[in-house]
Amino acid sequence: MRTETIVLLKGDGIGPEIVTEAQKVLQLVSDARKEANGFQLEFKEELIGGIAIDQTGSPLPEKTLNSCLNASAVLLGAVGGPQWPRPATPENPNPPRPEQGLLDIRKKMNLFCNIRPCIFPCESLKQKSPLKEEIVKDTEFIVVRELTGGAYFGKREEENAEGVAYDTTVYSVPEVQRITRIAAKLALAHEPPYPIISIDKANVLASSRLWRRVVTETIEKEFPTVKLQHQLVDSAAMIMVKNPSALNGVLLTENMFGDILSDESSVIPGSLGLLPSASLNGWGKESNGLYEPIHGSAPEIAGQNIANPIGTILSGAMLLRYSLGLEREAKAIEKAVAKVLDDEQHGGLNIRTKELGGNATTTEIGDAICKAL
Amino acid sequence: MRTETIVLLKGDGIGPEIVTEAQKVLQLVSDARKEANGFQLEFKEELIGGIAIDQTGSPLPEKTLNSCLNASAVLLGAVGGPQWPRPATPENPNPPRPEQGLLDIRKKMNLFCNIRPCIFPCESLKQKSPLKEEIVKDTEFIVVRELTGGAYFGKREEENAEGVAYDTTVYSVPEVQRITRIAAKLALAHEPPYPIISIDKANVLASSRLWRRVVTETIEKEFPTVKLQHQLVDSAAMIMVKNPSALNGVLLTENMFGDILSDESSVIPGSLGLLPSASLNGWGKESNGLYEPIHGSAPEIAGQNIANPIGTILSGAMLLRYSLGLEREAKAIEKAVAKVLDDEQHGGLNIRTKELGGNATTTEIGDAICKAL
Ligand SMILES: CC(C)[C@H](C(=O)O)[C@@H](O)C(=O)O
Ligand SMILES: CC(C)[C@H](C(=O)O)[C@@H](O)C(=O)O
Repeated sequence: MRTETIVLLKGDGIGPEIVTEAQKVLQLVSDARKEANGFQLEFKEELIGGIAIDQTGSPLPEKTLNSCLNASAVLLGAVGGPQWPRPATPENPNPPRPEQGLLDIRKKMNLFCNIRPCIFPCESLKQKSPLKEEIVKDTEFIVVRELTGGAYFGKREEENAEGVAYDTTVYSVPEVQRITRIAAKLALAHEPPYPIISIDKANVLASSRLWRRVVTETIEKEFPTVKLQHQLVDSAAMIMVKNPSALNGVLLTENMFGDILSDESSVIPGSLGLLPSASLNGWGKESNGLYEPIHGSAPEIAGQNIANPIGTILSGAMLLRYSLGLEREAKAIEKAVAKVLDDEQHGGLNIRTKELGGNATTTEIGDAICKAL
Repeated sequence: MRTETIVLLKGDGIGPEIVTEAQKVLQLVSDARKEANGFQLEFKEELIGGIAIDQTGSPLPEKTLNSCLNASAVLLGAVGGPQWPRPATPENPNPPRPEQGLLDIRKKMNLFCNIRPCIFPCESLKQKSPLKEEIVKDTEFIVVRELTGGAYFGKREEENAEGVAYDTTVYSVPEVQRITRIAAKLALAHEPPYPIISIDKANVLASSRLWRRVVTETIEKEFPTVKLQHQLVDSAAMIMVKNPSALNGVLLTENMFGDILSDESSVIPGSLGLLPSASLNGWGKESNGLYEPIHGSAPEIAGQNIANPIGTILSGAMLLRYSLGLEREAKAIEKAVAKVLDDEQHGGLNIRTKELGGNATTTEIGDAICKAL
């Protein structure tokens, strides 16, 4: 029987609790489909982030990286907490930061494509948005952020003797081509196909002019049926609040703009706890990916069994979809999540964690989703 | 009698109409205060943007720049339109862009400090926000954006033979010091003093680490009573939608982040047509400044007498406040604007342009504000 190895990186704070619930859901899928599809999932835990620093000295130990490189996919909880970086000492003047583990794993697994859907996980949550319901109701876009280039990995210099510091935002033609191709495939995977809205600052930046030219050419040559628009990043940040459904489709952008815009978009659906993400090194079953909820490690509520595991569970659904090609199973999880979350009026069970006004525990949400499945 | 020269740069699209209304309001202030304060305003029109390209070949003619450098302050309408840049020709393979006039005047007048209040101009407009009323109701912050540094003016290379392009985000200690000082003075000018929230990406960028260090030191040393917090740019973009009043105070940030965040913030008050901005080269009466509404040239409605002149009129109020030290006169204009805009329930006249659901013309708004004044 085909065995797919999933590495679990529970990480810090609420990480362990929420990954445990997602694992339960994935295990259920594995058990149920074992005979039918002839595959099973195997889980392997590894360290990352603050806990990895404390146990090994590194936020991304060699062993973790190797397991991840050899896995079918990786599911991550969250990293970081107020105790890291540990205080500097004479022996260790630059103690490592947990987030460095995240940046390193992105680069070393070559996860150049970050996908963050801004789509309501269920109907009745539209009321929870900080935006007015009539403004958000039709919002449905997916942010595709380039994740291994730009200012994150360009040449930089820390403050020098003259009191100057700089960073470099650098992009090459192949870097823009490969992310554009994934955006286009994602656009075509939707029925009807999504348009692509490419976001840059071409009226100021040279790297944005390259970005715009290459995106345009790649789509025209390789995906002539895909609709493409361009939007300046400042306008996009504005439209996202004023009229988000005008951005419906695939929002394709570079690393730093993507960092800002995907976080801006993430508050639209009303709770950070609900939203998943995928970071891929390619498209299709042969590619590897890292899946994680978009929220942080929330140390203030860690260990209390009140964190919302749904962002992680939906990341598990993305894992099945993008790394294992199990679209049907992914959809089933998404449906079960909607069922659990929706209020009675919308045919749901109205089981919600505290930040959504409910009183369900982390475990109860996981169990309810398994049951609905 | 003291004469203060105000250069009017009407620019393109709706620019001429809206600047004309603001000039009426400023003229009224000048007439009324002539004897009392012993000063008068003198207006001088110059070209900028598309119209300057067509008439002189340059988006910022030498004559315009000289007048601006010698003026007490500059009031600008808007630049740009679909007809520019003019098509390339063999003689002119890179026809100039109107926005270049804007970037050039910023640099040449040394306008390093851009100020954009995100404050409702009147009570009853809170309903117009795309955000829910209970979420926006207490929002009151001012974005202070560094305007002559960072990626906008750093070294860049257009796509080279290897298919690589880059931009450089560069900051020096004195650049960060001088903008921090203006932010602090702005914070202290408010009663009670605003806190400063400095926004960067210090967990990734070297320039942000310099930024954070210098902001912290400058405030600690020179403005020990001013409260200072730091926020990552991605979180700030998120909080601005989720809970904007958590950012109440002065948001201090670098050029590119400021471009994005100030545009994001500008939709909170419900209409772009209402919001003013100031770009200063220092603090206090001896400094020069350029004042402009935050919206664009809106060519689609130009010449129809339906554009909202309030953003420009309020920019005129900022001009009186920051370049001429006329706080009382600035407040009077702001009060008159609120009176005209507010609905009857809130003791206002409910005179609004089309995009706010009214049917007043550009001229009628200007006249009503003069009358209220
Ligand atoms: C932790 C940080 C370095 C990271 C980023 O900026 O990429 C985070 O904000 C994210 O978006 O995953
Ligand atoms: C027109 C453009 C170059 C400009 C900028 O990015 O600074 C504009 O967006 C602004 O904010 O004034």
